Amino acid sequence: MAEFTVDPRIEAASVWIGELSLCQVRLQKDARFPWLVLLPRRAGLTELTELSEAEHAQLRADLHVAEQMVRRAAEVMGQPVTKLNIANLGNIVAQLHIHVIARHPHDAAWPGPVWGYGIPESYDASSLQLLEARLRKVLE
Amino acid sequence: MAEFTVDPRIEAASVWIGELSLCQVRLQKDARFPWLVLLPRRAGLTELTELSEAEHAQLRADLHVAEQMVRRAAEVMGQPVTKLNIANLGNIVAQLHIHVIARHPHDAAWPGPVWGYGIPESYDASSLQLLEARLRKVLE
Repeated sequence: MAEFTVDPRIEAASVWIGELSLCQVRLQKDARFPWLVLLPRRAGLTELTELSEAEHAQLRADLHVAEQMVRRAAEVMGQPVTKLNIANLGNIVAQLHIHVIARHPHDAAWPGPVWGYGIPESYDASSLQLLEARLRKVLE
Repeated sequence: MAEFTVDPRIEAASVWIGELSLCQVRLQKDARFPWLVLLPRRAGLTELTELSEAEHAQLRADLHVAEQMVRRAAEVMGQPVTKLNIANLGNIVAQLHIHVIARHPHDAAWPGPVWGYGIPESYDASSLQLLEARLRKVLE
């Protein structure tokens, strides 16, 4: 059975935060948006509909934790949260991954989608470190 | 208790196809993409995480039917399907709705997201009628 690994493009664009019930949770390296990526730890998945009933239920639990985390990220970044965007696209990287993004009317891409919008902005090292620490706290 | 109604902007941009276990399913009036919209029949919902455990399980069943439907739509429209995009954004219309879109490398917006991309293309009346009939057949 193939082992779960993270696509190198996702690995490069995000940092590992922790492990949820079904998914690995990562923070997207884009300081414009509080943005998490969830990866179900099963090799070979591409579509949300490939999850079993049990996995789909685990995903719900993971989304609840991810919601808390992304709201905490928004708080640390000093951004309000008007709407979550929860999406699996996978047009560029097929490995199943679910975006959880906190949006508000004054963010860079509002009301459009964030994917492919403009150029990602790097976090400075200390902001990223703080954010990682705060997000891991949610998991404790 | 408030009654379930469909936001008039969603109503204007899509046509009713039928009712699934949890969701009303509608076809987006955009001939560029095989594109369904699922609306959980509960008033006042905005976030995916507001679904109960039972509703989230129903949503899984609905997504399986929606997948069959959107693949059928792609077939009728003569388009291959490389990837599904399954997403709740809701930045413009807050009422909880889940997009189920069939994508392929030669579609208008690939690999970018479809939301806000270019101008929707109308279906001609006979194509729309045919598509509606084929989609309703999946529900029988």
